Amino acid sequence: MTTTHATSNEATGTNGTGPVSPDALVERLREQATRYHSEHDFHVRMNAGELSPDQIRGWVANRFCYQEAIPRKDAAILGNCPEREVRRRWIRRITDHDGTESTEGGIEAWLRLGEACGLERAEMEDGRHIVPGVRFAVEAYVTFTRTRPWVEAVASSLTELFAPGLMAERLAAFERHYTWIDRDGLDYFRNRLHQAPRDSEHALEIVKERCRTVEQQDAAVAALAFKNDVLWSMMDAIDRAYPDDRAYPA
Amino acid sequence: MTTTHATSNEATGTNGTGPVSPDALVERLREQATRYHSEHDFHVRMNAGELSPDQIRGWVANRFCYQEAIPRKDAAILGNCPEREVRRRWIRRITDHDGTESTEGGIEAWLRLGEACGLERAEMEDGRHIVPGVRFAVEAYVTFTRTRPWVEAVASSLTELFAPGLMAERLAAFERHYTWIDRDGLDYFRNRLHQAPRDSEHALEIVKERCRTVEQQDAAVAALAFKNDVLWSMMDAIDRAYPDDRAYPA
Repeated sequence: MTTTHATSNEATGTNGTGPVSPDALVERLREQATRYHSEHDFHVRMNAGELSPDQIRGWVANRFCYQEAIPRKDAAILGNCPEREVRRRWIRRITDHDGTESTEGGIEAWLRLGEACGLERAEMEDGRHIVPGVRFAVEAYVTFTRTRPWVEAVASSLTELFAPGLMAERLAAFERHYTWIDRDGLDYFRNRLHQAPRDSEHALEIVKERCRTVEQQDAAVAALAFKNDVLWSMMDAIDRAYPDDRAYPA
Repeated sequence: MTTTHATSNEATGTNGTGPVSPDALVERLREQATRYHSEHDFHVRMNAGELSPDQIRGWVANRFCYQEAIPRKDAAILGNCPEREVRRRWIRRITDHDGTESTEGGIEAWLRLGEACGLERAEMEDGRHIVPGVRFAVEAYVTFTRTRPWVEAVASSLTELFAPGLMAERLAAFERHYTWIDRDGLDYFRNRLHQAPRDSEHALEIVKERCRTVEQQDAAVAALAFKNDVLWSMMDAIDRAYPDDRAYPA
């Protein structure tokens, strides 16, 4: 069964009567949860414990393309943001992923996840398993954050509103079904459980405060829908590259 | 007397015989010091104690446009850099200028310099004194770092090689000649005395390591020449806006 997925054109209609209150805008944004990639068939099967080790490895190796792009995406937002106070909080996302002298960072944690799954570090870092559809989707996201107004780019990050639910479910699923993966390898998911809510709270604050006109509110919802498309498109490409009966690597 | 200034086209010639050694490349880069804005007549007069309070204020208010753009410039470089290890060091520049919860940051220090000179914080932040030539030069610099290969953008930062000399001279000149400015207001210059060498060392490492072909080496020298043009052009615009006999604000 393939989950159907409304494209952003169909899913971002306005009420046609003018701007809504900040809280109603948050509601509109939250409605995009139905289009989050947690609903994708590949994720549904992942969390039901139905994926093979090869499929898990294929997902981890491809998803690394996205992980590795996150600091560039956040730096692009920082580079377009003229407000020091916003930058001072946003920059934390970059160190969370790149790490510092004293902290590991999300990219390193993802590499450890890959190693726990049986992937070599080198085969993740050189991108040999990354399929074109994943690469194109990730680059589309980075380009969006470089070229669109920074508040829209902030709005596109709001898939983090939906992430903790998926993270918690995934963590439980991995610990239960994929016992061949060392539990220490799952730190990335654990870290995101508290990082994502902190990050989405800041992003939501910005969007609520600055998206006051119909056009701004529509643009924020469209940005989030676009981001859902990015994540969904990645899952489509991964799903196609690692079907149920195909060994990995090909 | 107006100091003459060779443009980047005239000043970046190669030896025409192939790539040079990393150390010889550093020499080529250091030769650009003759075109650094410390040689501009306005700076020469500043350091000789010849500027009026109005001229000093005009310079401080206009130079704030540049200070404020630095984190966006560095975030643009970060956003174009695919290498985590480089990003982990480069990000320090952003917190140095934006500050953190526990540190003031260079932008704040510059605002304090302005206040020590008799400027209101608001008139610096709203940019009312910034002349078009300064704004255009600063935006050209940010655009350069957004759109050029990140190693070239790193090379353009190498005016920091020449900065400590100017900073030390300026600090001494301010303490000696402009005694109407509170010494606490000069912290920005003091901080840059140790930040600039640390930053330029990292940038030089990157450029030495990665600019190995003639084309790469020429591009690095051209990037630095471009940056000298940016700084020089700002001084030209400021010099014209605040001539010796004109009161400030206009």
